[in-house]
Amino acid sequence: MFAFKQTHFHEGARCGLLQTPHGTVETPNFIFCATKAAIKGLTMETMKGLGTQFVLSNTYHLHVNPGADFIQARGGLHKFMNWNGPLLTDSGGFQIFSLGHGSVAEEIKGKRQQKRNTTLLKITEEGAKFRSYYNGQYHMLTPEKSMEIQHKLGVDFAVVLDECTPYHVDKRYTERSMYRSHRWGVRSLNAYKALTHGNQKVYGIIQGGVYEDLRRIAAEFVNEQDFFGLAVGGSLGGTKAQMHDIVGTTMSYLRKDRPVHLLGIGGPHDIFAGIKHGIDTFDCVHPTRIARHGGALVKAKYNPNPQKRDHLNLMNSQYKEDDTPIMPGCACPTCVSYSKSYIHYLLKAREVLASQLILQHNVYFMNSLMQDIRQGIQKKNLDELEKEWLG
Amino acid sequence: MFAFKQTHFHEGARCGLLQTPHGTVETPNFIFCATKAAIKGLTMETMKGLGTQFVLSNTYHLHVNPGADFIQARGGLHKFMNWNGPLLTDSGGFQIFSLGHGSVAEEIKGKRQQKRNTTLLKITEEGAKFRSYYNGQYHMLTPEKSMEIQHKLGVDFAVVLDECTPYHVDKRYTERSMYRSHRWGVRSLNAYKALTHGNQKVYGIIQGGVYEDLRRIAAEFVNEQDFFGLAVGGSLGGTKAQMHDIVGTTMSYLRKDRPVHLLGIGGPHDIFAGIKHGIDTFDCVHPTRIARHGGALVKAKYNPNPQKRDHLNLMNSQYKEDDTPIMPGCACPTCVSYSKSYIHYLLKAREVLASQLILQHNVYFMNSLMQDIRQGIQKKNLDELEKEWLG
Repeated sequence: MFAFKQTHFHEGARCGLLQTPHGTVETPNFIFCATKAAIKGLTMETMKGLGTQFVLSNTYHLHVNPGADFIQARGGLHKFMNWNGPLLTDSGGFQIFSLGHGSVAEEIKGKRQQKRNTTLLKITEEGAKFRSYYNGQYHMLTPEKSMEIQHKLGVDFAVVLDECTPYHVDKRYTERSMYRSHRWGVRSLNAYKALTHGNQKVYGIIQGGVYEDLRRIAAEFVNEQDFFGLAVGGSLGGTKAQMHDIVGTTMSYLRKDRPVHLLGIGGPHDIFAGIKHGIDTFDCVHPTRIARHGGALVKAKYNPNPQKRDHLNLMNSQYKEDDTPIMPGCACPTCVSYSKSYIHYLLKAREVLASQLILQHNVYFMNSLMQDIRQGIQKKNLDELEKEWLG
Repeated sequence: MFAFKQTHFHEGARCGLLQTPHGTVETPNFIFCATKAAIKGLTMETMKGLGTQFVLSNTYHLHVNPGADFIQARGGLHKFMNWNGPLLTDSGGFQIFSLGHGSVAEEIKGKRQQKRNTTLLKITEEGAKFRSYYNGQYHMLTPEKSMEIQHKLGVDFAVVLDECTPYHVDKRYTERSMYRSHRWGVRSLNAYKALTHGNQKVYGIIQGGVYEDLRRIAAEFVNEQDFFGLAVGGSLGGTKAQMHDIVGTTMSYLRKDRPVHLLGIGGPHDIFAGIKHGIDTFDCVHPTRIARHGGALVKAKYNPNPQKRDHLNLMNSQYKEDDTPIMPGCACPTCVSYSKSYIHYLLKAREVLASQLILQHNVYFMNSLMQDIRQGIQKKNLDELEKEWLG
């Protein structure tokens, strides 16, 4: 039922087919975030129509509300949210620790430092004790509990529980935490094996922060464990350059026969850098989140400010009378029928349709980007493509 | 280019074909409100896919923002919002007077009385002076101005400017206002004839409030004027029974060869009552508005409380574990793939997808209702159908 076949190689990148009981994902590919069992503003039928092959949901959010037992009783997460394709959940750790460290994802990824808040109460060898953002209830998330939740959700791919160390902690903490995450990884794997019967697979996580020697230890650990796939997690440094370095270093230590996911990273620049280190899948809330604020992804040549950002800000008054589509030549349903002027007007008028139209475009954009990348690997013209997309 | 052909008759109701340069509407039919040049949560492609034939927008809202000149420069309202079918705008009067009388539509329709606010500053023979809700700017809406705006929007059907008298004013005021609306009607018609060249048509409005003699005078007035279509407007009383009475009275005085629209009314019960008096089209924000608050329209037999309301309130906890669709047997994309339980969860989690899913259903529901009614007239089994839909 599960398999990962690599079919083409070019400049460190690879094409593959990731088979699951819910269909096959062509890799490299992008995983869209249906955080709370829904894409914010598009039905799953529309997502599929826009070329989406792979979706993820967040264990933490679904555990807190409506709960794994509830979703299991509804026939599982696939059925509940009407996504019949390959589906992954994270372990819940990322949200607990990122909320616990008093910040959102950016902090974990190294972008800022804030004091802790009180939703994460305690991390012990047993697991993480936290309070629900939803109703203040106390929860204890252990590796066994995380895997039980993901098992009940019925996803294709579960991810082991780890502590996602933030950027501001020191090497000593990062190392201690990494070893604990390894012990949690083994517990997660064992728990999952006892629960499933081959119809769900587990991704291990590589931690180690920004430290090359720790990344090596973490890579060697997951290489030896019986994980189906591998996910690069934890702090990736404070700059894009450091992130690409750490990803490159980590990938150099990893075995080559397993699918590798890069957790929470998925801007077009990062994707081109990532695939050249052999990354197979990416996920990021970026394409869906910016859509809600008027951000529409475009190729560099259609971007007046490609050095600053990868998208147009359609709230900007320069688009008020711009009757052209978001991206000339784009075949998405938004670009075929709607102008920047109309979307700008809708944004200003606070009409909910604005973000839906942009979201349609951004989803199609990401899926087109990944399809182009796969063809670029097969035709060995990645550099040319990179120039077209990134400038 | 424009024509109205009546094809079938049964129990006072009639089927017809309303031809426009943007396609033909099968009547009786329902007109959906794209108030500010957008359906709140669905693209026009989706609306069309759900069987929608006719859309309206509001002159008042579009005049205030972004303005008729702006939309004309974008190629007109059809192109701006990507609706290629028949399109009507109201005159702007309803919003000005309903906002001016310190309330929303319900007040005009007779449901409550509140003191005036200050957006409507003055009504004179010339027109209505008001302040924009959008930015506080002063505007003067005259019959000529209203028709100029609607002409620039490029709609198929414009409606004459009238004063929409609320329920709480007395007969003397209603009568005086009616005669002024007649003078405005003539001015509207003349202004429009000077602007258009047969590619846009005008609906006259029948006012007269709850007074039978005034309704008769108003009907005889519009009968004699060169309107393409007729619209029943103004206060229709304080109860459903009174509304149905007034509509019946008014219709009895109207000539039979023109399409007749019932302004702002469109609940399933009102539609069945209306078609039996010969009404051809209805509009109402009800199906779209209730969707945003968890209201899903259902046939009576699927409604636990059909006496109280025409829809389920999916926020209600009784739907928490209800794995069935909104309406069994419904072929809409929501009912085919999503459960009440999922939509209830989305509503509670404040996921925007909830209202989109309900809206898809409500639009399909209204279009199915109207299609059934047309078939019921043709097959002469309206009573049977009414029982099925209303119980």
